[in-house]
Amino acid sequence: MSVTAAKGFSAAGVAAGIKSNGNPDLALVVNTGPRRSVAGVFTSNRVKAAPVVWSEGVIRTGAVGAVVLNSGGANACTGPEGFQDTRATAEKVAASLGGLRAGEVAVASTGLIGVRLPMDKLLPGVDTAAGALSADGGEDAAVAIKTTDSVHKTAVFEGEGWTVGGMAKGAGMLAPGLATMLVVLTTDADLGNDVLNKALRAATRVTFDRVDSDGCMSTNDTVLLLASGAAGVTPAYAEFADAVRTVCEDLARQLIGDAEGASKDIRIDVVNAASEDDAVEAGRSIARNNLLKCAIHGEDPNWGRVLSAIGTTAVAFRPDRVNVAINGVWVCKDGAIGADRDSVDMRGREVVITADLAAGGASATLWANDLTAEYVHENSAYSS
Amino acid sequence: MSVTAAKGFSAAGVAAGIKSNGNPDLALVVNTGPRRSVAGVFTSNRVKAAPVVWSEGVIRTGAVGAVVLNSGGANACTGPEGFQDTRATAEKVAASLGGLRAGEVAVASTGLIGVRLPMDKLLPGVDTAAGALSADGGEDAAVAIKTTDSVHKTAVFEGEGWTVGGMAKGAGMLAPGLATMLVVLTTDADLGNDVLNKALRAATRVTFDRVDSDGCMSTNDTVLLLASGAAGVTPAYAEFADAVRTVCEDLARQLIGDAEGASKDIRIDVVNAASEDDAVEAGRSIARNNLLKCAIHGEDPNWGRVLSAIGTTAVAFRPDRVNVAINGVWVCKDGAIGADRDSVDMRGREVVITADLAAGGASATLWANDLTAEYVHENSAYSS
Repeated sequence: MSVTAAKGFSAAGVAAGIKSNGNPDLALVVNTGPRRSVAGVFTSNRVKAAPVVWSEGVIRTGAVGAVVLNSGGANACTGPEGFQDTRATAEKVAASLGGLRAGEVAVASTGLIGVRLPMDKLLPGVDTAAGALSADGGEDAAVAIKTTDSVHKTAVFEGEGWTVGGMAKGAGMLAPGLATMLVVLTTDADLGNDVLNKALRAATRVTFDRVDSDGCMSTNDTVLLLASGAAGVTPAYAEFADAVRTVCEDLARQLIGDAEGASKDIRIDVVNAASEDDAVEAGRSIARNNLLKCAIHGEDPNWGRVLSAIGTTAVAFRPDRVNVAINGVWVCKDGAIGADRDSVDMRGREVVITADLAAGGASATLWANDLTAEYVHENSAYSS
Repeated sequence: MSVTAAKGFSAAGVAAGIKSNGNPDLALVVNTGPRRSVAGVFTSNRVKAAPVVWSEGVIRTGAVGAVVLNSGGANACTGPEGFQDTRATAEKVAASLGGLRAGEVAVASTGLIGVRLPMDKLLPGVDTAAGALSADGGEDAAVAIKTTDSVHKTAVFEGEGWTVGGMAKGAGMLAPGLATMLVVLTTDADLGNDVLNKALRAATRVTFDRVDSDGCMSTNDTVLLLASGAAGVTPAYAEFADAVRTVCEDLARQLIGDAEGASKDIRIDVVNAASEDDAVEAGRSIARNNLLKCAIHGEDPNWGRVLSAIGTTAVAFRPDRVNVAINGVWVCKDGAIGADRDSVDMRGREVVITADLAAGGASATLWANDLTAEYVHENSAYSS
C-alpha cells in the first residue's frame, strides 16, 4: 500500500528514461490535503547532493505539496548546474500539477554521484508521472525509486481511523546519519509540523540511524514525513510516534534484508552499557568491522573480532569483564574463552551478536550485514 | 639480512608445531650486546593481547636481551591463563639462553584470537630456536613470523659504520595504531633508550600508522627497536631517525603490497589541508571507504566516493572547493565534474588518489588496499 495507504495522497511511478535499462525511474507523491504538514531528516554528510540542499530549504518553508524522486542519478557533486537541475525539476512539478509553488516541492535523487541528470528525459517524465497519479499508485512509486534494490519496500501502520504508510529504497551505502536511503512516509492524521518533526526524529534515531550495512554515508539520504489531515483524526502523540517508529523499523529491517550482496543480517545487541551513547558507539564499531563481517559470512563465531572492535572505542568497559554471545551461546566470558565455539549454529540468515559490556544498564540494537564477494562484485563491476 | 644485518644480534626461526601445517612458527632474536637499549610501540586497542601487556612492562624496565615471537596464535582474550603462558615463554627463553632474566625478554604473538597457545609445543620450540641461533638467522626469523603473509618482509639501511635492519609480518587487519603487525628493528649503533624511543615514535607515526589495509585494529601490534651498540658508533640523531624511518617506510610499503587478497595498492595524498591532523583524518576516511575500495578494485575512477568519504569528517574544507585527481587526472574540480573519467588509466597495481582540500598548506600520505572477493574469501573461509 505504501505512501497511498493514507488518505489524501496520490502517487505514480514511471519510466522517464533516466535509467538506460528502461526500468521505472521517476516517482511522484502528491499531498491533496487538506493540510500539507511536513518533517524531514537528511544525510549528515557535509557533501550534500543538490536535491538535499533544495529539500532542506523546502522543509523550512513548512509546507510540502509534492515530492518528486528519481533513481538513475544522485545529482551529487554536480556544482551549481546540478542545483539548477533540481530547481527546474521542482518548477516542472509545480507547473504540471498546478496550484503549487516550486518551493513546496521536495526533490530526492539516488544513483551515481558526479553525473548530471538527463533533464531532457526527466522533465517530460514529470508530465507523464503527473498524468499517471492515482490513489493506489503507492506501489508504482516504490518500484520507481529502486536502484540496486532487489525488491521494493513498503510498510503500513493502521491506527484508529488514521494511517501511516511509507516506502523506502536503499541497498548499499547504508550507514547512519542516515543510510543511502530515500524514504517517504505519509499519514492522514491531522497533525502539524512540530509533532511530525518530533515523531520523525525520535523514530529515525532508533531505526534508520542504527542500520549500518557497509559503514558508508551517502550524500543523498532523505526521509520525509507528510501529513494530509484527510482522516480528520488527531491521535495522541505517543500513539502516533509509536506508529511512525513501527513503520520506520519495518522499512529499516527491509533495507538490511536486501543489502547489496549480503547473505546474513546481523543484529547487534549491546547490553549493560554505561549509557545509550556508549551502547551505540560499541555497536557501531562492531557493525563496521570488516574482518568480523567476513567471519560472519563464513559462519565462523569469531568473537575475538567483537572484542577487538569494542577495544577501538572510548566506551566504558573493562576488557576482562566483557561477555559476548553469538546466537545465544556465550562464547566469550570475562573477556576470555567461554562456551565452545563449535556449539554455535550460524546457518540461518539472521545472526545475533550480544555484547555485554558489564558497565551499566543501558542498551541499543543495531543492524548490519556480512561482507561477501557479491558485495565486492556489485560495487566494483560497474559504477554505482 | 633482516634483524641480523646489524652487528650484535643473532636470530633463528623454527617450526615448533604451533601451526598445524608444520610451517615455521617460532622466532627468536637475541641482542648479544654490549648494550641492550630498547624502544617499543604497541597497539592502541584497549583489548590487548597478553604478550603486549607483558612486553609493555618489559620495555619499561629499559633493557631487552631477547625477543621471542610466535605465529599460529595471538594469545589474545585468553584471560589470566594466557598471561601466564606469556610469562612462561619469557622464563623459558631466559633459561634457555642463560644470563638473562625473564623480565628482559619481550614476547610477541600473532594468529587467532581467543585460543590458548599449545605450550607443550611452544616451550620445547624455544630450546630448538636457542640451539639454532646464528648471526645470519634473520631471514629464518622473518619467515617464522608469517601468518597469511605470502612473502616474508625485511629491510636494511646501511649508515656510516652502523646499520638498521628489520623484519615485519602483517597481511590483514592493517590499521593505524598500529596495524596487525609484528616488527622487530635492530641496530648496532651505540644509542640509549631515549634516542631509540624518539626515533621510533617519529618513524611509526608517519609509516605504520598511515597504513590502513582494512580499517581493523589488532590486539597484538608490536614494533620493537633494539640497539646492541656493537658497531661502537653513535650517529647524529637526524641521521639515525632518518634511517629508522626509511626502514619502517620500506616495511610498511611491503605490508600494503602483500595485504590479504588485495589487487591494488592505493596511495592517498591529501594536500592543501589546514593541518597535518586534518590531512590524516581525511585520508583515513578515504582509506576506509568500502565502496571506494570496491570501485578501485573494479578500476572505476569513482571520485564521488572520495568526496562522500571526506564529507563524513570534521576537517576544514568546503565541498565546492575540493579537487580530486586519480592517477594524475583531475576528475573532480571545485567539488563538481572535472576531467573525463574515462581518461584515467587504472590498470596498474598502484593507484594514486590526490585529494586537494584547498584549505591550507599541510599534507599527508596514507596507504590502503582495494576490497576484493579474495579478501572476503581469506577472512571467511576459515578462522583467522
